[in-house]
Amino acid sequence: MEVSEVLHMNGGNGDSSYARNSLIQRKVIFMTKAIAEEAVSDVYCSMFPKTLCIADLGCSSGPNTLLVVTQTVKTVDKIRKKLCRQSSPEFQIYLNDLPGNDFNSIFQSLPRVQEELKEEIGSEFGPCFFNGVPGSFYSRLCPTSTLHFVHSSYSLMWLSQVPKGVEMNKENIYLASTSPPSVINAYYEQFQKDFSMFLKYRSEELVSGGRMVLTILGRKSEDPTSKECCYIWDLLAMALKQMVSEGLIEEEKLHSFCIPQYIPSPLELKAEVEKERSFSINRLEASEINWAACSNKLYSSDDSFKDDGYNVAKCMRSVAEPLLVHHFGESIMDKLFHKYGEILSDCMSKEETKFVNLTISMTKRE
Amino acid sequence: MEVSEVLHMNGGNGDSSYARNSLIQRKVIFMTKAIAEEAVSDVYCSMFPKTLCIADLGCSSGPNTLLVVTQTVKTVDKIRKKLCRQSSPEFQIYLNDLPGNDFNSIFQSLPRVQEELKEEIGSEFGPCFFNGVPGSFYSRLCPTSTLHFVHSSYSLMWLSQVPKGVEMNKENIYLASTSPPSVINAYYEQFQKDFSMFLKYRSEELVSGGRMVLTILGRKSEDPTSKECCYIWDLLAMALKQMVSEGLIEEEKLHSFCIPQYIPSPLELKAEVEKERSFSINRLEASEINWAACSNKLYSSDDSFKDDGYNVAKCMRSVAEPLLVHHFGESIMDKLFHKYGEILSDCMSKEETKFVNLTISMTKRE
Repeated sequence: MEVSEVLHMNGGNGDSSYARNSLIQRKVIFMTKAIAEEAVSDVYCSMFPKTLCIADLGCSSGPNTLLVVTQTVKTVDKIRKKLCRQSSPEFQIYLNDLPGNDFNSIFQSLPRVQEELKEEIGSEFGPCFFNGVPGSFYSRLCPTSTLHFVHSSYSLMWLSQVPKGVEMNKENIYLASTSPPSVINAYYEQFQKDFSMFLKYRSEELVSGGRMVLTILGRKSEDPTSKECCYIWDLLAMALKQMVSEGLIEEEKLHSFCIPQYIPSPLELKAEVEKERSFSINRLEASEINWAACSNKLYSSDDSFKDDGYNVAKCMRSVAEPLLVHHFGESIMDKLFHKYGEILSDCMSKEETKFVNLTISMTKRE
Repeated sequence: MEVSEVLHMNGGNGDSSYARNSLIQRKVIFMTKAIAEEAVSDVYCSMFPKTLCIADLGCSSGPNTLLVVTQTVKTVDKIRKKLCRQSSPEFQIYLNDLPGNDFNSIFQSLPRVQEELKEEIGSEFGPCFFNGVPGSFYSRLCPTSTLHFVHSSYSLMWLSQVPKGVEMNKENIYLASTSPPSVINAYYEQFQKDFSMFLKYRSEELVSGGRMVLTILGRKSEDPTSKECCYIWDLLAMALKQMVSEGLIEEEKLHSFCIPQYIPSPLELKAEVEKERSFSINRLEASEINWAACSNKLYSSDDSFKDDGYNVAKCMRSVAEPLLVHHFGESIMDKLFHKYGEILSDCMSKEETKFVNLTISMTKRE
């Protein structure tokens, strides 16, 4: 079955390997930096652990991979100096992603990163031990009661699998205004199951009072088919439909394809956390970022909408291509993403288009 | 300088990445299995830790990589069942090698290995968490007082660098009967410095009462230039000298090449452990394995010496090639190892040739 193929490809984890190293993700990490800093400061100052254990889940491999953990180490060291504490904690850092992630390239960059940290902070900090932890964050990854701070960015909207029964979604590849209620339910139930499982496993791994900060692609509206979260996939579906009409893709092939992602609302996140009961919520904030943030441009020109569209397509390609290639084959990708770029350019020139990010900061209960 | 180039290439660590996955190493792991089992049994039964932390240093990547840690997990589970203890410890496993090691291929094999463990042991064991730890074992790798059992096989004879002043060693590439005393001293001092540093770092990482089992290529004689340890490199030097005489290698190039390895005696190992004082020695055993164990053959034929020679050359090529390529260039390798195979075949048909392995089992003092 097609759906289970995608499921298999997706390895029972989120597709974080492909989502984390976009330019937009870098901007989101900086936007949510203060919340992560607050959480790690709190946990450090309330425990002063000899070894501070930090996990970054869905770390991917690329320019953003070590951004969060090095920020975290620097934050702790700044507080330590402010408090005039002589001895630095040791840092035990767990970098997690699926076994297919390119850990080799992360590891090869570590000596340089460690050198830079030492230069910036001074040699009295740390030591700082880096570990690669291959596996799905929808399973246990670390021993019981060992972690002080868990971070994850732009990974948790990926489900562990394509929800069951989404064949009824027809030519939609994600939720849309035309999705039948059974499909909407199937998606929501999969999200509930996955997210509560994630919370359960992390609560086992975190020490009492440990902190967790998650940033997820989200929505503000309570309607799971609202445009703010569905539009970006809707436009990709549009490009796919054009290719069906041109005879480049079989209609059935399109009907059996769905993105294993769920873009939740703040209330939905909150409900799962409260139901699972291991965590108390400190903050739950929504922020927005323009689709155009996928571009690196500081100033726009006349052509900027056109460029922006293609840049968003490029960014989404890095996210969705493995799933699409697995389902539709390699050969149509260039054409598909060219079409998608065209459609995106057109939309972005006519309306304001934004991603919503939800950042939730939690404390593991006693 | 040539020496520092080799040093740089060798990354300030042992060259374990290339040594661990030979057939002979597999046999050595099985030969020393009982000692490792005894050590891990002792540490488990004396502490019954909630999480048992195991490190394999110089794990390499290949068929032998997970052999020791899976054996260790099975041993602990067998004892647990024998003692009728209901709950299994969690296993936190650290797989260490240099950052250039192929961790990706290890990680990709993990889901299968974990499945096999579950099938063999039953689902009530573990969980078992695997971590990749990139770095030199001549530096700190893990937080203070966290490890229960450290294992390393066929890695610690590699020095952190080529000893200083070995240019005087002329056409020898390792210690030899013609090596001047200054070279012998330089090698021994580098070994002392490296091994005591290794002991210091591991003693910081191990819990009190924690155990460490190391298997090292060694010698029985107190003479560091004795044939039992030097012959294998001597024959490679012979092949290199032939190529100098054929004008394929410059003489100076040969004179500036040395293998960053030291093959210690039991007394030398013992002396360092006693001087460093963090560990008490439980066992220190020597074992022998025929060079011919590099072959996979069970029965020998008339041609067997010839085959054996080439198989040993192949095995040594996997160990030494990166160093040789870095110094002499890629182009002469095939010819060099063909010559080496010829020389080895000839020797092995005339005399008995063996590697000596030293296995040392230690306990971290209170």
